Amino acid sequence: MENLENSTDCKETVSPLNNSGSTVNSTVSGYDGKAMGFVLVHAGAGYHSESKAKEYKHVCKRACQRAVDRLRAGGLALEAVTAALMELEDSPFTNAGTGSNLNLSGEIECDASIMDGKSLNYGAVGALSGIKNPVLVARRLLSETQKGKLSAGRIPPCFLVGKGAEQWAISHGIPACPTEKMTTKFSLSGYKRNKRKMELAEQVETKRKRQLCGHENDFGCLEPVGDILVAGEENNSACLDTVGVVVVDREGNVAAAVSSGGLAMKHPGRVGQAAHYGCGCWAENARDVSLYSTAVSTSGSGEHLIRTMLARECSTAMQAENTHQALLEAMQNKFISSPFLAGEDCVLGGVIVLRCCTCGEAQRSEDIQALLVEFLWSHTTESMCVGYMSAQDSKARTHISRLPPGAVAGQSLAIEGGVCRLGTVSD
Amino acid sequence: MENLENSTDCKETVSPLNNSGSTVNSTVSGYDGKAMGFVLVHAGAGYHSESKAKEYKHVCKRACQRAVDRLRAGGLALEAVTAALMELEDSPFTNAGTGSNLNLSGEIECDASIMDGKSLNYGAVGALSGIKNPVLVARRLLSETQKGKLSAGRIPPCFLVGKGAEQWAISHGIPACPTEKMTTKFSLSGYKRNKRKMELAEQVETKRKRQLCGHENDFGCLEPVGDILVAGEENNSACLDTVGVVVVDREGNVAAAVSSGGLAMKHPGRVGQAAHYGCGCWAENARDVSLYSTAVSTSGSGEHLIRTMLARECSTAMQAENTHQALLEAMQNKFISSPFLAGEDCVLGGVIVLRCCTCGEAQRSEDIQALLVEFLWSHTTESMCVGYMSAQDSKARTHISRLPPGAVAGQSLAIEGGVCRLGTVSD
Repeated sequence: MENLENSTDCKETVSPLNNSGSTVNSTVSGYDGKAMGFVLVHAGAGYHSESKAKEYKHVCKRACQRAVDRLRAGGLALEAVTAALMELEDSPFTNAGTGSNLNLSGEIECDASIMDGKSLNYGAVGALSGIKNPVLVARRLLSETQKGKLSAGRIPPCFLVGKGAEQWAISHGIPACPTEKMTTKFSLSGYKRNKRKMELAEQVETKRKRQLCGHENDFGCLEPVGDILVAGEENNSACLDTVGVVVVDREGNVAAAVSSGGLAMKHPGRVGQAAHYGCGCWAENARDVSLYSTAVSTSGSGEHLIRTMLARECSTAMQAENTHQALLEAMQNKFISSPFLAGEDCVLGGVIVLRCCTCGEAQRSEDIQALLVEFLWSHTTESMCVGYMSAQDSKARTHISRLPPGAVAGQSLAIEGGVCRLGTVSD
Repeated sequence: MENLENSTDCKETVSPLNNSGSTVNSTVSGYDGKAMGFVLVHAGAGYHSESKAKEYKHVCKRACQRAVDRLRAGGLALEAVTAALMELEDSPFTNAGTGSNLNLSGEIECDASIMDGKSLNYGAVGALSGIKNPVLVARRLLSETQKGKLSAGRIPPCFLVGKGAEQWAISHGIPACPTEKMTTKFSLSGYKRNKRKMELAEQVETKRKRQLCGHENDFGCLEPVGDILVAGEENNSACLDTVGVVVVDREGNVAAAVSSGGLAMKHPGRVGQAAHYGCGCWAENARDVSLYSTAVSTSGSGEHLIRTMLARECSTAMQAENTHQALLEAMQNKFISSPFLAGEDCVLGGVIVLRCCTCGEAQRSEDIQALLVEFLWSHTTESMCVGYMSAQDSKARTHISRLPPGAVAGQSLAIEGGVCRLGTVSD
């Protein structure tokens, strides 16, 4: 059986004050005895126009397929998560790798990180230019950490930034890529529009200040200006951010990764949550104190995700019995209403979450072990594009989750998810 | 009364398997009705040679005085913590600002961050060159965050790195400083020694690999080489790291800051815990869910401190009743024996911790409010140099805490601390 049978999503959208109960549905995946594992990806929490929905879904589909290819070839979670994330980075439609937002100077500077739930090792790069797949550098940093100390007892770095990160990557065999090749016509046109928008906003601000000096509280003649900059998209309609992947492999190991071109028109050198430990991604296998393996990847306003350490908070929350309720509460209490964001009236972000455990009540023969995988996404942005697939599926499923009509982005949230059970031959 | 009376330290040094109870002593600070507040600083957890002990203590003393000057002038915690940290950065003896370790390319790249317990705002810089006081840039990033959004609704950055951070600092009025001015004869001679040491280590490694190819397990003729690189110090005796400060002000607000030149011979672009949210410093005023205000600053092997998020872990631990026991357990379970550092046989780091609350049982007249301040330090390194002072003291006290003879650095820990009560006129 190839398809993920009956994996009907439980769609439930709630406002902060309208917290209804959890109704995540359970499904059982077919078992073919050859491969096992599950991948969940997203192509950014932001606003995905209907006109581009097809492209986003295609990207997510391809990314899932890349991960599943690795899982079927015997690869573990870390390998699969890297493969899927590279696919997302390579798409010109996502704000990561090729097609990333340009910064104030018109340059691409990427953040990415990866975490291995088995070893708990971690690698990250920040403000990295000139490398096509930033996650590959993060992954290589993680691998080098696992090899032990450098010459003369030096501890290998887990986080590199800027020019130094680029040099390290090249010296470790990762090829350089000219920025021009990573810049798309969308990112360039977005940059030009944003630059004009900023100039206009600054002119208005200067005018307002002048008026304040002469006639306090005299704002009558000012033109309103939009307050959200756009990524490289048509019709000013997109505000994408970070992409991310979470994976569980046949051994029940989890891994998570995240990659981002960062906010449009960011200051050069600005590093967002995608390169921040505990903020951009988190992966932790089950151990003594925790029953479940968890993997999380976040997306949205980097500064808000940093200050709330959202990835780690969601991972911790996932040890509760009811995943749906736990994620809902985490998004509400640790993000939208977080004391670390007091005064912020618009908190934009999204997460994909995966948790799994070995099934207690094996309904199959004794030589078959089953993994129960729960997968969820939640966002406070207008929309979030996700894709998911098990290693036994013939193709990925994709979905653009949206806030319900009337819900206010940055103050309300949507939460959806599913469950699937995967079987494997025990050792 | 000017002095912090009877503030005898409780010195207790324990190995991981010899966890004895807590015996922190309580002291009462003199009250002069004019100023209130307390500062605790450190000049690095590492190895402080006896010959340089005087210098380290002097630096700590001056740093405490700078903080207290601000507190007496009516400054709040954030201002005092910055002033003290700048003093530590300016000393050529510490591995922060002037006198920082040089990286592989012989350059200075600094990390620093600061957190305000009242607003929970945060600012950080990583791999920053050409600025005399990195903490000043972190502080300015924090201040700019508090001003709200940038033009066209852009969220201000809380973390900047590399060249972009330097440009941002200069454009915000912080003067540039040539690297040559921040390089000392100690840092330069340390760099040269380390370079030779690394070359030797790499030669030995190459020789070993060649031998392995020809005669497996034939190591007989190899010269042993040291496995710890030294900072810019005489006699290869120092291995200093990060400096840090924690402060509580007259209103009970806490703040924490940290600054580091990073590991000697680090790869360019490497960012350590000093620029990592939750890892280098943490400050959180008491609020609904937490009884105590806490401030923490960490020092040591950056990668270990990042992966264990030691600053935030210690802050969380400080909500327990017994500070000494809580810190001991945090250092033991969340650092030395952390699952995030499994396989590491030498976990080097140190923390300074401060927690305070309004005294419940006021023993003075009703119009006087008292703050109970508990201050502790703990380290797994050979030694740690600390200084502390209340705003009513005439001078700071300093101390070099050392592991007991025979204790193994990286596997054992020392923990010490004190308590003082500060009085103030209520509003």
